[in-house]
Amino acid sequence: MASSTAGKVIKCKAAVAWEAGKPLVIEEVEVAPPQANEVRLKILFTSLCHTDVYFWEAKGQTPLFPRIFGHEAGGIVESVGEGVIDLNPGDHVLPVFTGECKECDHCKSEESNMCDLLRINTDRGVMLNDGKSRFSIKGQPIYHFVGTSTFSEYTVVHVGCVAKINPTAPLDKVCVLSCGISTGLGATLNVAKPRKGSSVAIFGLGAVGLAAAEGARLAGASRIIGVDLNSKRFTEAKKFGVTDFVNPKDYDKPVQEVIAEITDGGVDRSVECTGSVSAMISAFECVHDGWGIAVLVGVPNKDAAFRTHPINILNEKTLKGTFFGNYKPRSDLPSVVEMYMKKELELEKFITHEVPFSEINKAFEYMLKGEGLRCIIRMTA
Amino acid sequence: MASSTAGKVIKCKAAVAWEAGKPLVIEEVEVAPPQANEVRLKILFTSLCHTDVYFWEAKGQTPLFPRIFGHEAGGIVESVGEGVIDLNPGDHVLPVFTGECKECDHCKSEESNMCDLLRINTDRGVMLNDGKSRFSIKGQPIYHFVGTSTFSEYTVVHVGCVAKINPTAPLDKVCVLSCGISTGLGATLNVAKPRKGSSVAIFGLGAVGLAAAEGARLAGASRIIGVDLNSKRFTEAKKFGVTDFVNPKDYDKPVQEVIAEITDGGVDRSVECTGSVSAMISAFECVHDGWGIAVLVGVPNKDAAFRTHPINILNEKTLKGTFFGNYKPRSDLPSVVEMYMKKELELEKFITHEVPFSEINKAFEYMLKGEGLRCIIRMTA
Repeated sequence: MASSTAGKVIKCKAAVAWEAGKPLVIEEVEVAPPQANEVRLKILFTSLCHTDVYFWEAKGQTPLFPRIFGHEAGGIVESVGEGVIDLNPGDHVLPVFTGECKECDHCKSEESNMCDLLRINTDRGVMLNDGKSRFSIKGQPIYHFVGTSTFSEYTVVHVGCVAKINPTAPLDKVCVLSCGISTGLGATLNVAKPRKGSSVAIFGLGAVGLAAAEGARLAGASRIIGVDLNSKRFTEAKKFGVTDFVNPKDYDKPVQEVIAEITDGGVDRSVECTGSVSAMISAFECVHDGWGIAVLVGVPNKDAAFRTHPINILNEKTLKGTFFGNYKPRSDLPSVVEMYMKKELELEKFITHEVPFSEINKAFEYMLKGEGLRCIIRMTA
Repeated sequence: MASSTAGKVIKCKAAVAWEAGKPLVIEEVEVAPPQANEVRLKILFTSLCHTDVYFWEAKGQTPLFPRIFGHEAGGIVESVGEGVIDLNPGDHVLPVFTGECKECDHCKSEESNMCDLLRINTDRGVMLNDGKSRFSIKGQPIYHFVGTSTFSEYTVVHVGCVAKINPTAPLDKVCVLSCGISTGLGATLNVAKPRKGSSVAIFGLGAVGLAAAEGARLAGASRIIGVDLNSKRFTEAKKFGVTDFVNPKDYDKPVQEVIAEITDGGVDRSVECTGSVSAMISAFECVHDGWGIAVLVGVPNKDAAFRTHPINILNEKTLKGTFFGNYKPRSDLPSVVEMYMKKELELEKFITHEVPFSEINKAFEYMLKGEGLRCIIRMTA
C-alpha cells in the first residue's frame, strides 16, 4: 500500500524548540522523504519524558537548537526508504531513541542491547545516512533529537529504531513503552530478576521507578520497598505494588542501614532510578550479602564517582547497570506490548495527564512541577 | 569402625606458632576428643596458602598466639562427636576454612555459600561449641586458626567444615582444593562463567589466578590474558592456558585501556586475584560494555575504596564478588575432586614443592620468596 505522500516532502505541524528552556512553538515544517534504511512515520500520540526536558533545558550539555524533541510515541508508517523490507506503510510502530541494527556484536549478543550503530546519541541532530536533517522551515534545517523527534505530526527515523507492534494495541497507551516505562520494567524483569516471594528496594518513585516496582509486582515480589525524598509519592506508589516506604530524610543513618534492619540483612534486589550517586551507593550496599543484586538505571552527572568498600562486593553482592531495561527495541518491544494486551502490565496507572498537541507546553509544566507521571500529547484533534 | 583413640586425648606433633613472624616449632600437643558436631581428623597432607602467612605475620590484625595455622589439607576421620551422622571414622575428607551448616538462609540459597554459622572467622581461635581450644601443651591452650589448624597430625573441626570425598582420590594432590585452587577455579567456572570461545583477563598470576586461568581453559575460553607486575610469571602461566601477557609496568596508560585495544573494546570476562584496589578497578573497567562480567576474588586492605564512574556500570557491565569460588564446601567440593579424577582439572601443575612436616618452615620460605605455587607438607614420614 503506497501512500499518496510517498516520495514527497510533507508539510505538517511540529513543536520546535528554538532556544534552550523557551516554550516550544508549533510551526509548519517540511519533512523530507525517508532515505535508505529510513522510514517516515505519522505520529498519533507522544508523551513527555525527563530526557526531553533535560536536553531542552540544555544545562550542562552542548546546546543544539533549533530542535524537535520527543522520543516516546506511537505512530503509523507513512512510507519507507530504499532497502526497508521489515516495515510497510500502515504498520503500527513505536519509535525508539536507541536502535537494533541486528548486525553488530551487541545485536548478535544475547546479553546486550547497546547496538554499535544505533546506540543513543544525544549530541547528533542529523540522520546517519547523509549527516543531514529531514526537517526544515523555509530551507533552514531543524535538528533531530535522539533519532526520533516525535513532537511532529510526521518524523523520519532509522528503520533500526522502529518496533513494529500489534496493530490492535491502543497507541495512546502503549506509546509510553517507547522509553521510561520499558526502562524501569526491564531493569527489574530482565536484569534484577527477583524471584517470587523476594524483597526488592526501588530508589526513586518517578515513572521509571514505578515501572521498576510494577516489574517487581509482576515477578511476584512479596515486599517492595520504595525509597524517595518525597513522602507524598508513597500513596501513588501503592498502586504499583510498593508495600513499604522509606524516606532517607526521616533517619539519622544511611538508608542502606535502615533497609538492612527492616529486612534482616538486606533486600534480595534493588533498582536505582534516580541518577544520584549517593542513591546508587545506597542501592548497592542495601542488598543482602551472598545473593543480592543491585541494578543501576538512573544516569548520573559527568563528575560523579561510584565508591564503595570492596568488601561489599566480595561478600557476593552483584552490581549491574542497564540501558533501556536491556530490551532490544525491535526484537523485544512487541512482547512488552503483548504483556499490556494480556492485562498483565497496567499502563493506565502511568498516564496521569493528556493534552492536545497545541498545548504541548503544558506537558512541560506538569513535569517541571513534578505533577503526575506521564502526559499524553494527542497529535490529531 | 571405632578407632582405639576415640574419646581419648591424642598426643601428637603439631607446628606451633608461638609469636608473629617467628619460625614454627614442632611440639607435642594434646588434642582433645571432638565434642557435639565436631570431628577429629588425622591430617596426612597439608599445604601452605598466603592466608596462613598473612595471619602468621600478623601485620595489621590483632595477633592471636600461640596458634596452630594451616587450612589446606587432606585427611581421614579419626573419630566423630555427638550428633555427627554424615561422617564416620575412616572417611577421606578435606577440611575447609569456611563451612556449610545446611540450615541458615545462605546454605538454603542456591546462590550463596556464605554460611551464617560457619563463615570464615579469622579472629576466633576457639571452637564454637564451648568457646575453648581442643589443643593444649601441658595445660596451656593453643589457639585454632579458621577452624581447621591443619599443621598438626590431628585436629578437631566442626562437621560443617569437612567435605567427604572419593576415598580413592590421592590426598597429596587434592588437598590443594581446600582453599586457593578452588577459590580461583570457582571464580571462573561458577561466577564469571565464560562461554566457549570467549576472552578472559586474569589479574594476578599466583596460585589463585592460575586456578582462575585453569577454569577459563576448562570453560573453553579462546583467549586468556594474564596481567601481572612480574613478567617472569608468563612462562609458567602458559601451562594454565594463558595465551597473552600484559605487564602494566610496560605501558604509560591504564592497563584497562591496553586490554580494550587488544580485544576490540574489552574482554568478555575478568577475574581479579590480587586484592589490589587499582587492579580491581582495572579488572572492572577492562570488560566489554553490553555483556562484560568482572569477578573480584582478592581481599583488599581495610582502607581501600573501589571507585569508578557510574557510566562504566550503566553501560551494562556487571561487577560481582566471590568467596571461595562460590563453592559450598560440603555439597560442591566432592565434585571438584571428581573433576581431578576424570583428568579434566590438572592439579599437579600447582604443586611445585614438597617437604616433610619437620621442614615446614621451608614452605614458609618458598612462599615469602615468591618461589613456586604450592608446597605440600607430608605429615607422616
